[in-house]
Amino acid sequence: MFVLGIDPGVSRCGFGAVTADGSPRLRTAGVITTAPSDPLPQRLALLQRELRALLAELEPDAVVVERVFFQTNVRTAMSVGQASGLALAAAAEAGCDVAQYTANEVKHAVAGYGGATKRQVQQMVQVQLGLAELPSPPDVADALALALCHLTVGPRLAKVALQVQRDAEAAR
Amino acid sequence: MFVLGIDPGVSRCGFGAVTADGSPRLRTAGVITTAPSDPLPQRLALLQRELRALLAELEPDAVVVERVFFQTNVRTAMSVGQASGLALAAAAEAGCDVAQYTANEVKHAVAGYGGATKRQVQQMVQVQLGLAELPSPPDVADALALALCHLTVGPRLAKVALQVQRDAEAAR
Repeated sequence: MFVLGIDPGVSRCGFGAVTADGSPRLRTAGVITTAPSDPLPQRLALLQRELRALLAELEPDAVVVERVFFQTNVRTAMSVGQASGLALAAAAEAGCDVAQYTANEVKHAVAGYGGATKRQVQQMVQVQLGLAELPSPPDVADALALALCHLTVGPRLAKVALQVQRDAEAAR
Repeated sequence: MFVLGIDPGVSRCGFGAVTADGSPRLRTAGVITTAPSDPLPQRLALLQRELRALLAELEPDAVVVERVFFQTNVRTAMSVGQASGLALAAAAEAGCDVAQYTANEVKHAVAGYGGATKRQVQQMVQVQLGLAELPSPPDVADALALALCHLTVGPRLAKVALQVQRDAEAAR
């Protein structure tokens, strides 16, 4: 399985790709940036082109985008919403499986509990991927954590979904 | 000038196109809908395809998307953000001028004051476009009001921007 994690943002959009044939390995990671001095529509169009190019180049099996419920202010929520909309649409358009997890779900899956700090998440990503250094900047660490979360939690969720379906069929 | 207004939303995305060679006239209007029962990434990809097809068919000079600052909850803000991100990126990608106005700015421009009710906006849109009936549903009226706002306010804003530029150049 080859999973691309995306930490959505308009100014900075982190991405991290992890292959998991055996133990998970880092394939590539980075940050797509757009200039705050450019008009928003052009920045969004650029982000969309970069995301599409990334999907076309990597051809991941699954794309994981952070699901954001709470933000300190609505302006930030709008901006994250715009970036996540582009990422989700591009992933669906590219024919990938798409999953979303909240930051808490990611911390639970990767670091063992929902209250983990940014640094603890970075350290767990470093250990799980056997990296020589802490993954940084934090956007990259978050994107890799999303991918690792999907590799850990995804199969379990799929089993639960299958069981629910079987139960529903048995109840008919 | 030919302006397409877009009232962004994932479940319902209103659009309304107005031509203004002389007095403004309705060209076309409607609502793009996606099924809440479908997975979000597929809904966003569908909305994106529909928006692109609309832009390719109409070839507007300018696209106007509502700028949302406040929402009753962050979940709604995320959803509106996702739809507006797709609309803004598609408009920029199609080479259109892109403008954004808040709901208050639209009410000011179309109905004369920022506290206008939905129904007052519908009535003013009806009068300004010389429609036989109230434009409905409200998403369509809002999209048409955005287009009318741009036709009213756009030229004034352009003049202000030009004056600011001239003043800046004169001050050098």
